[in-house]
Amino acid sequence: MTERLSQQLAFILEIDRLKSVCRRSYLLDGARLENSAEHSWHVALMALVLAEHAAEPVDATRAMKLLLVHDLVEIDCGDTYCYDAVAVASQPEREARAAARLFGLLPPDQAAELAGLWHEFEARATPEARFAHAVDRLMPMLHNYHTGGRAWVEHDVHQDQVLRRAAGIADGAPELYEYAQQLVASAVEQGWLRAEDGGR
Amino acid sequence: MTERLSQQLAFILEIDRLKSVCRRSYLLDGARLENSAEHSWHVALMALVLAEHAAEPVDATRAMKLLLVHDLVEIDCGDTYCYDAVAVASQPEREARAAARLFGLLPPDQAAELAGLWHEFEARATPEARFAHAVDRLMPMLHNYHTGGRAWVEHDVHQDQVLRRAAGIADGAPELYEYAQQLVASAVEQGWLRAEDGGR
Repeated sequence: MTERLSQQLAFILEIDRLKSVCRRSYLLDGARLENSAEHSWHVALMALVLAEHAAEPVDATRAMKLLLVHDLVEIDCGDTYCYDAVAVASQPEREARAAARLFGLLPPDQAAELAGLWHEFEARATPEARFAHAVDRLMPMLHNYHTGGRAWVEHDVHQDQVLRRAAGIADGAPELYEYAQQLVASAVEQGWLRAEDGGR
Repeated sequence: MTERLSQQLAFILEIDRLKSVCRRSYLLDGARLENSAEHSWHVALMALVLAEHAAEPVDATRAMKLLLVHDLVEIDCGDTYCYDAVAVASQPEREARAAARLFGLLPPDQAAELAGLWHEFEARATPEARFAHAVDRLMPMLHNYHTGGRAWVEHDVHQDQVLRRAAGIADGAPELYEYAQQLVASAVEQGWLRAEDGGR
């Protein structure tokens, strides 16, 4: 086996660990929390199916690639809950270290390619990255909404928090942003999201 | 919401169920069996990283697309264990029905597109499909090998069975086929695969 194939296989084996990173959203059947690997698969296919709703014309396969790679850093950092302000503050530095380690397992040219995809997603530097972000933000809303707001209720989430996250959809997919706002309004109506913020 | 977006979202919600389809291979840390959604993510990234080892030049993103879609039929059929001869015999008919139902949730143009991807993979009709097959066959060998042959031992698998499966790698990625043969030889040596077939 060449050194190059050996490095590639080491990376492939290492990323198996993303299957053990727990997110805060439940599977739609409520059986368990979902993990970041299956989530990455789900949003990649979502991007393929919803590409026509992107704000600008996008290469759907590039958006898929961004989404397949976007959560890999969680292998070292875990899933940062978007409503945990302390964890969110230290997230960029922790994730940059993780990216250097993980992509560094690959041969240099591929390390640069995958790190580039990750940076593109993080920086929302392209129409594909903005659309991929939109899809990645809409997905947990779908999961929450269709499990009776379960994770929202468990974490005592307020509609303004969700609406601030949802605003990140507007840039990449305005039509999906409208739909997200409808979901939030309906969730509030059904008591799954707090309407008053109780002074927080 | 348009009827078209409504159909697209129905499909996206429905495929969440692939996360509950169990495969026969264990995560590399041995914690549990892996599911078909996270497996699909893993092989898609594997295709991206190993594309240079394809037998013919391939569009890696197309191979990724094939792999993201290839197991969706398991939502209705479950994962067919490759060494269960009875289940394998009825697999094509069961999976064709599942494909019609699942892809039929989408708007007609997208139903045709995704069914096309699934058929392309199944028929190994293109260099991308043959390479995707190769990757899909190598992956469980990696999982088995790096968990001390756990699923092979549990199912009392014989090296000839694995070598027959591995032969499907040769077409799509000869160099990876050589590597797969080395894995089998090493697994036999370590007692993880039976070398004698005991008259079966």
